[in-house]
Amino acid sequence: MPVANLIDGRAIASQIQGETAQRVTALKARGVEPGLVFVRVGEDPASRVYVGMKEKVSSQLGIRSETKILPESATEEQLLALVAQLNADSRVHGILVQAPLPRHIRETVIYSAVLPEKDVDGFHPVNVGKLMLGDPNGFWPCTPAGVLELLVRSGVKIEGAEAVILGRGNIVGKPMAAILCQKSKQANATVTICHSQTRDIKSHCRRADILIAAMGVAKFVTADMVKPGAVVVDVGVNRVNDPAAKGGSRLVGDVDFEAVQPIAGKITPNPGGVGPMTIAMLMQNTVRAAELATGS
Amino acid sequence: MPVANLIDGRAIASQIQGETAQRVTALKARGVEPGLVFVRVGEDPASRVYVGMKEKVSSQLGIRSETKILPESATEEQLLALVAQLNADSRVHGILVQAPLPRHIRETVIYSAVLPEKDVDGFHPVNVGKLMLGDPNGFWPCTPAGVLELLVRSGVKIEGAEAVILGRGNIVGKPMAAILCQKSKQANATVTICHSQTRDIKSHCRRADILIAAMGVAKFVTADMVKPGAVVVDVGVNRVNDPAAKGGSRLVGDVDFEAVQPIAGKITPNPGGVGPMTIAMLMQNTVRAAELATGS
Repeated sequence: MPVANLIDGRAIASQIQGETAQRVTALKARGVEPGLVFVRVGEDPASRVYVGMKEKVSSQLGIRSETKILPESATEEQLLALVAQLNADSRVHGILVQAPLPRHIRETVIYSAVLPEKDVDGFHPVNVGKLMLGDPNGFWPCTPAGVLELLVRSGVKIEGAEAVILGRGNIVGKPMAAILCQKSKQANATVTICHSQTRDIKSHCRRADILIAAMGVAKFVTADMVKPGAVVVDVGVNRVNDPAAKGGSRLVGDVDFEAVQPIAGKITPNPGGVGPMTIAMLMQNTVRAAELATGS
Repeated sequence: MPVANLIDGRAIASQIQGETAQRVTALKARGVEPGLVFVRVGEDPASRVYVGMKEKVSSQLGIRSETKILPESATEEQLLALVAQLNADSRVHGILVQAPLPRHIRETVIYSAVLPEKDVDGFHPVNVGKLMLGDPNGFWPCTPAGVLELLVRSGVKIEGAEAVILGRGNIVGKPMAAILCQKSKQANATVTICHSQTRDIKSHCRRADILIAAMGVAKFVTADMVKPGAVVVDVGVNRVNDPAAKGGSRLVGDVDFEAVQPIAGKITPNPGGVGPMTIAMLMQNTVRAAELATGS
């Protein structure tokens, strides 16, 4: 049995970030400083960590970034007013409203309020629609766009492959399906979307050439669900109790990595797989937004 | 072998039209006359037939309809000006720009110009995005919405079913996939999207509980591709040469009906299956647009 090849998300993300940094340099040579604003509502610990990581990469790449923080008690109107102000600010090329939002704020209302041209998260219905329609002028959501880059830059043949996606969420599963079944040399996969109501999820997994796990269930994908040689991408981020870990819990993916690695043709580690790609694609989207806004 | 049950698209469409006519009556009682405008560019014979059929059903249901005709030589700007005028006209609740448009006019530009609230065809990126995001506030494209109604009103159990869709077009295949995999009691299918680059399309078809053919290839689905008892929906409309037919050609579906009918659990005839549903859903969308525009 071949030992699985790791898909090194950190290395690929770093390669993409190098390309993005060059585009930042080119923009600055023309007097344009790409600007990205993070909006965080409340003090959710995971959100603080995510925004912090994204801020750090922004500054590494020369993207001017800023974080606006509203209290947990902020109203939808207050958040909409902030978004409107950022929409109107020509120095801001990208706006990212960090999820999750407090329960009293409707995410769809907020995502629809961000100008599509500044929606570097790719969550505005216009951008979702363009992705589905195959219109290249929109922004793709960062995580599935990052998974595609991982596959392409690892030399995975997607065209004609059987791709099975576990999960039908708006952030990963559904856009991932739209991306992989596109009419494109870098796609053209036969895509199956599985979810909690799928009858025999194991048999679908076993016929996958490319298996993308985005269910949000810790270690859901076990060795008996993977065809030898398949490419396995683990998008999951699940917090599980672990008395031995710092803080009593730790993060695990949707794939039982130790068991699946020896069988898989290629596999993403987790962490170090999809996670860094999400940030890299966010930066790429931001620089593209700045280029488009300034006529590059 | 059981004889297949026909799914009578004409009867189901007529049922839906009866419901729509009642909503028209209710609107008129409030002084609102629902209005639908068809825009046709050039004299494509199929487009003339389609628009004529839609006009006829509109008038049967009490929907005021009108057809604006531009010459084949009309520019994109002229068409955009007409759309803008219709967008601004409060008596117009629905706008349908009949495809195909002449080659010098970009369909995506035109579809994006129709106000989403009047986009009863469901082709505007905002409506496509809302469909994909599971946001019920948009308009669904008429053909896949009609297929869902056919299945639901024929008592087909969609939840947990294996649905295989042949074709990944923007009008049927992709939105059909989004509809069937939704988190809803009337959906929740496991969806596979097959297309021209699919490796072993026959084996996918053979595992389908619900097989939806929208490839645009005459009689593509043969008996050996259908699992006994499966529900087969034929969306195809293909013109084939037939010296014996009037005009030397006739229309056939994507399914070899004679061969598949004896095997299928349920099957749509073609014509008389999906076609009438597309028009019924257009009327339903139009009345809904009128209701929403007038605060019903």
